Amino acid sequence: MRILGIDPGTARLGFALLDYDKSCDISLVDCGVIETSKVDSDALRLTEIRDDLEEIIDRYKPEFVAIEQLFFFKNLKTVIPVAQARGVILEICQRKKLRIFEYTPLEMKKIITGNGMASKDLVSDLIHKFLNLNTKIKPDDAVDAVGLALSFVRSDLSHLTY
Amino acid sequence: MRILGIDPGTARLGFALLDYDKSCDISLVDCGVIETSKVDSDALRLTEIRDDLEEIIDRYKPEFVAIEQLFFFKNLKTVIPVAQARGVILEICQRKKLRIFEYTPLEMKKIITGNGMASKDLVSDLIHKFLNLNTKIKPDDAVDAVGLALSFVRSDLSHLTY
Repeated sequence: MRILGIDPGTARLGFALLDYDKSCDISLVDCGVIETSKVDSDALRLTEIRDDLEEIIDRYKPEFVAIEQLFFFKNLKTVIPVAQARGVILEICQRKKLRIFEYTPLEMKKIITGNGMASKDLVSDLIHKFLNLNTKIKPDDAVDAVGLALSFVRSDLSHLTY
Repeated sequence: MRILGIDPGTARLGFALLDYDKSCDISLVDCGVIETSKVDSDALRLTEIRDDLEEIIDRYKPEFVAIEQLFFFKNLKTVIPVAQARGVILEICQRKKLRIFEYTPLEMKKIITGNGMASKDLVSDLIHKFLNLNTKIKPDDAVDAVGLALSFVRSDLSHLTY
């Protein structure tokens, strides 16, 4: 079973792919960022995000996507461009028939560490430990995407009926 | 020259098509709304919006699009879903190579009536007068879309170089 995690953004969108098998092993397949240039228009950057994400979905064929839920009070300056990117992300995920799950940053921290107010460093440390990773994932956007995919495995996945 | 006006939304997206010819005549080609159901998920509604808008663009082949600019303080509750829809709209317009122009509601009112604080009724009345329309456009979302397309004709269009 393959899960795509997405931390939405316009300049930098984090993505991660996790595999979860019948023996309950979780492994990181790939992770990284989709970057767009500030020089380009919002609209052009949105087409780039959609094209890159479509390529990732076609290559890795995930069944589920775990994406960060947005709140307007979190970051007033960026909420509109990030929500615009999130709209494009949801649209392509739906079109590719992925099942969509959403987590707030607080939910993700709580699922990973047991504490919704945990520090970014603790969340990152535990993600690396769970996945037995020896090298550090970079940048933070990719770590968050791994955390979102992992949140799905550790919460909603167990409640799903097939 | 054909202009597409768009008032973004998720439940109801207003659209309008205006033609502007060399003798400076402006005529309304079509207008209406794309509606999606509240019963469906955000993601499914976004695919419906993209499909319907793509069909409208393919049918009418506009060169320009005038779309409402969003502000987070305008409507805190709906800003995220509306921005998500707006992202999908910008993406398909860019992919179809339309030239994109953005207007705030205040700018639109100012261009149409001369006063950024004009009432909705006055804006609507003047739009109908400019276009010599005998029947009233419904609903308001479609009127706003006509107003946006008209704003482009009366402002940016005259500054464009070909």
